[in-house]
Amino acid sequence: MRKWNFSSGPAVLPEPVLARAQAAVWDLDGSGIGVLEHSHRGPELMAVLARTEALVREVANVPDDYDVLFLQGGGSSQFFMVPMSFLGGGTADYCATGVWSQKAIAEAGRFGTVHVACSSEADRFTSIPSPAQTTWSAAPAYAHFTSNNTIYGTQWREEPAVPPGVPLVCDASSDLFSKPIDIGRYALIYAGAQKNLGPAGVTLVIARKAFVARGRTDLPTMLQYRTHAAHQSMFNTPPTFGIYILGEVLAWLKAEGGLAAMAARNQAKAAVLYAALDESRQFRGVVRPDARSLMNVTFRASSGALDAAFVAEAEAAGFSGLAGHRSVGGMRASIYNAFPPAGVDALVGFMRDFEARHPAA
Amino acid sequence: MRKWNFSSGPAVLPEPVLARAQAAVWDLDGSGIGVLEHSHRGPELMAVLARTEALVREVANVPDDYDVLFLQGGGSSQFFMVPMSFLGGGTADYCATGVWSQKAIAEAGRFGTVHVACSSEADRFTSIPSPAQTTWSAAPAYAHFTSNNTIYGTQWREEPAVPPGVPLVCDASSDLFSKPIDIGRYALIYAGAQKNLGPAGVTLVIARKAFVARGRTDLPTMLQYRTHAAHQSMFNTPPTFGIYILGEVLAWLKAEGGLAAMAARNQAKAAVLYAALDESRQFRGVVRPDARSLMNVTFRASSGALDAAFVAEAEAAGFSGLAGHRSVGGMRASIYNAFPPAGVDALVGFMRDFEARHPAA
Repeated sequence: MRKWNFSSGPAVLPEPVLARAQAAVWDLDGSGIGVLEHSHRGPELMAVLARTEALVREVANVPDDYDVLFLQGGGSSQFFMVPMSFLGGGTADYCATGVWSQKAIAEAGRFGTVHVACSSEADRFTSIPSPAQTTWSAAPAYAHFTSNNTIYGTQWREEPAVPPGVPLVCDASSDLFSKPIDIGRYALIYAGAQKNLGPAGVTLVIARKAFVARGRTDLPTMLQYRTHAAHQSMFNTPPTFGIYILGEVLAWLKAEGGLAAMAARNQAKAAVLYAALDESRQFRGVVRPDARSLMNVTFRASSGALDAAFVAEAEAAGFSGLAGHRSVGGMRASIYNAFPPAGVDALVGFMRDFEARHPAA
Repeated sequence: MRKWNFSSGPAVLPEPVLARAQAAVWDLDGSGIGVLEHSHRGPELMAVLARTEALVREVANVPDDYDVLFLQGGGSSQFFMVPMSFLGGGTADYCATGVWSQKAIAEAGRFGTVHVACSSEADRFTSIPSPAQTTWSAAPAYAHFTSNNTIYGTQWREEPAVPPGVPLVCDASSDLFSKPIDIGRYALIYAGAQKNLGPAGVTLVIARKAFVARGRTDLPTMLQYRTHAAHQSMFNTPPTFGIYILGEVLAWLKAEGGLAAMAARNQAKAAVLYAALDESRQFRGVVRPDARSLMNVTFRASSGALDAAFVAEAEAAGFSGLAGHRSVGGMRASIYNAFPPAGVDALVGFMRDFEARHPAA
């Protein structure tokens, strides 16, 4: 019996993908060799890589002048790879909307000047800065923002309005492919796979070829985006199984109707949960309504003791991973693409049951 | 029907490990959540990480003053991470014994002076340099060698005899844990998992704590070994599934009798194959007998045309991955820990059959 898995990442995957993966671990598509055991340069794995890249391009309508890269090291490696390649002692603009933004800012500071164009730190990252709260520097090397803030549960409704000509870089680790996206607006966008896309250990990077070409050439070979672009992510042995799963997830996503269908489904799931929070007298959402994330719903009960009681009772009832991030406490329900609507309904039912047993004072 | 998989990596895994992984993908040990979907900070995955590290320490008798790290980016990332942390404009000694050594040398050259202490390039990397052929520099920051050369099929019988006090760094990507090892002789030893240890996407690094402490502190956080040491490889989301498989492979290895049993089994497998090559008039081993690898057996037929015919006929008969690396041609049989002895016997039988049909001139 599988639980309702609200983990913020690694996170729930579509069950049809898991079933296919189980078979492939023993024998990939009748090849007589398991997916973990295939040479990355053999025809079977080359086909997996090609199919996965083609699915990324199809699902997100990626323009032809963009590279699609499968890297390692997670978002945390992109935090330094981006400024290492593209900052070069200049100034970059960063939007500070949470822990991961701040980590990205700290790494960028090693390679040049960081101008914090906007920040929601003053209200404990419970909002997304408005254009009026944002000041861009004169000619930044690029502007960086975090499209969804996994820990706080906020999400940008649309991209920050950077001045024309400023390359926009986005950490979309926790909402890439949860809704339609105009890739052409980004110079480079990246996501650790372990939220909406697949397992931990593979990072999807989509970057404009002209931007990649601009990167420094005096870096270690593995740290230059152009290396991976020139070798179709096969300069060295790629994380083959992670790429395989990512491809299976995208095939599932396409069969389910693509990004528009995912957006509708994600909006519906989040609406159910936020409505329950708004109606409740025991629970309340943590962030400003106009900044609410459709991916990570953060909420609290009326006391820290009841937060703890709720998480424990929920865990015992088969709802896993509802504790908030250790840095903020409370509760967090992560409801990425693969999280089933029925699980949200079940959680809301459990919350009402909990509230009946623990009415607000 | 699974094939005999002679791939040089990613490579064959023990079938009991695959069977356990199939179950775990759906539900890890009755937790109600699959291994790919568990939060890395949840108790189940924390237990997987702790157990895997404990198995590394037990199987290889790792001294307590060593860190065991699970990183990403493969050996290719270690090629630059080692000199980036430890070279600092000084001189490091490298043993040049093949393509991967040369790649490591190229990356080190970005951070200081490389002294090539020995090289087998003059005989096309078909030998391992002797002590008489080796000249160490006066006081290198460290000495680096590649313990097994996957492409050429050579292997060091024992570590190079570096002068006392010189930190020894080893790329053991293709023979770590194929035989007993004295970790205490190394300052740092690393291996991409995808040969003897697990799937692609996880790199095992074992390093003396005092050496780690000596690394530069002004590097991106992710590129400092101390970061991963201080956080038990959990500074960022680790490649959880790869670590899980690595742990399962080590549990299998331990149950099979540990490193001594692996060494005996690997010696026996290689002996059968090299004896067949020495007896054959159609096939011959490529490298000098005293440098023969127990992991990657490189050989040739009496003509390039017969090489190609052999690889094609073998593939059709269920022997996969026997083509030599694209840079050297011929044949290569990779027979890592998990490759079954019966597969070597079957290959030798097929070679004899081929030779009967294609007798040497």
